[in-house]
Amino acid sequence: MPETGLPSFAADTGVTAVEPGRWSATVHEGWDIAGNANGGYLLAIAARAMAGAAERPDPVTLTAHYLSPGRPGPVEVRTSVVKSGKRFTTVQATLVAGDRPLLAVLGTFGDLAPTEGAPAPSRVDDSPPDLPPVDECVPLVPSDDAGGMPPPFARRVEIRMHPGDAGFSRGRPSGEMRLRGWFRLPDDQPLDTLALVLASDAYPPTIFNADLPVGWTPTVELTTHVRARPAAGWLRCEFTTRFVTGGFLEEDGVVWDDTGTLVAQSRQLALVPRPV
Amino acid sequence: MPETGLPSFAADTGVTAVEPGRWSATVHEGWDIAGNANGGYLLAIAARAMAGAAERPDPVTLTAHYLSPGRPGPVEVRTSVVKSGKRFTTVQATLVAGDRPLLAVLGTFGDLAPTEGAPAPSRVDDSPPDLPPVDECVPLVPSDDAGGMPPPFARRVEIRMHPGDAGFSRGRPSGEMRLRGWFRLPDDQPLDTLALVLASDAYPPTIFNADLPVGWTPTVELTTHVRARPAAGWLRCEFTTRFVTGGFLEEDGVVWDDTGTLVAQSRQLALVPRPV
Repeated sequence: MPETGLPSFAADTGVTAVEPGRWSATVHEGWDIAGNANGGYLLAIAARAMAGAAERPDPVTLTAHYLSPGRPGPVEVRTSVVKSGKRFTTVQATLVAGDRPLLAVLGTFGDLAPTEGAPAPSRVDDSPPDLPPVDECVPLVPSDDAGGMPPPFARRVEIRMHPGDAGFSRGRPSGEMRLRGWFRLPDDQPLDTLALVLASDAYPPTIFNADLPVGWTPTVELTTHVRARPAAGWLRCEFTTRFVTGGFLEEDGVVWDDTGTLVAQSRQLALVPRPV
Repeated sequence: MPETGLPSFAADTGVTAVEPGRWSATVHEGWDIAGNANGGYLLAIAARAMAGAAERPDPVTLTAHYLSPGRPGPVEVRTSVVKSGKRFTTVQATLVAGDRPLLAVLGTFGDLAPTEGAPAPSRVDDSPPDLPPVDECVPLVPSDDAGGMPPPFARRVEIRMHPGDAGFSRGRPSGEMRLRGWFRLPDDQPLDTLALVLASDAYPPTIFNADLPVGWTPTVELTTHVRARPAAGWLRCEFTTRFVTGGFLEEDGVVWDDTGTLVAQSRQLALVPRPV
């Protein structure tokens, strides 16, 4: 537990109001992948400031465009409320390091606590991924090498991959552009809707399971929809890719909580570099 | 053809630079659904101004949050370039009518003209929807009634729905939350990447094919990824919904051009009102 007394995810994404529309924060050590901070982690910092500006706790839909890699050190979130309505508040933001913009973000925030009264109509035409028990899944174990794989980031989250999707880490990609598995924060840290933003970008790229000459896929944009606050316990995640075309790929995520409730849906657009 | 000499989509989404970061435009008559301008049409106006600000022609990924309904009359687009890089430029924008914000938008723009050199690796794990010929599909015919269904908007686009998905318009929903069909602009207007933004929000809601007591689904947010400039001819579109939960639904779109190339992918988050 860090010195703030907060669990590490909450502490490491903490923001401090400087003046209206300006929030200071720190990109902490250990959240990086090959030296660059994980995209979901950076977005969670921005989202915490935006929720503060919105005075509403939960991101309902959140889109980040990734402009420059984030490295450990001080950052600032600049927020601007575009509209505050009866149920939702929409906020534009940038996350900057010095004068360098790292993220441009647009988000709508609300309160996803369960409400009274007649529920809206619902229908679910899909189901959580069928996963072996956590103990039979494959942990993403942090590397002890600087710059090694899996990355230091793997200490900040607990990921257990479906054995059928984990072969890529031993040089045996499944051939299917899919990664399924469990997710939680270490030490039983509580899961809030900001942790869902983190979960939506925490898995290795789906393309690692394709037989394509692609080593890295920088995110251009990530959108996460939060449908509900998650129950305590492990999350079930499924990430899939259908289209690697024109130098881009999408990665679609679906996240379910331990009670079988859909809690988040995500999609990112990433670059597919040409072979060198 | 309108008096500008431009095809109507280009003319009706036209913008004029007022000063750096400010663009004037007009929400034209006839693009509405029950009195409110179609969301893809409004976004195309904003995107045209943003492309101007970016000095790059094609939206690569574009996200709009819908704040208030748009009605015919003058509007302004306010643009702010967050970063201009080697390949892409990222722009924040708002579309406002007087002082009322209608849309908050975040977009990254580039040039999707085909390039020389080795292509990036590619793989497509899906295929265009299997559609009967255009003449055997069901047109969405504009209503002559003010406020009637189908809406006046149906004159601005040409939509031919798969007969298996069109039963909802005669009170016989298919039961599957899916709408497939053809799309083009009337009078053989050229299709550019802004027309893909329009196409991604032009179809009736997928939920019209579900047996749920839902009459309208206001869009909260729409994200469109443009993968390629479309070839001339009809587009093949498929819109699906898997999750109607927590008062929200997503609608996923995939758009292919006449040569079988994936040209756009979209997702929107919409509200599912409680029954009254």
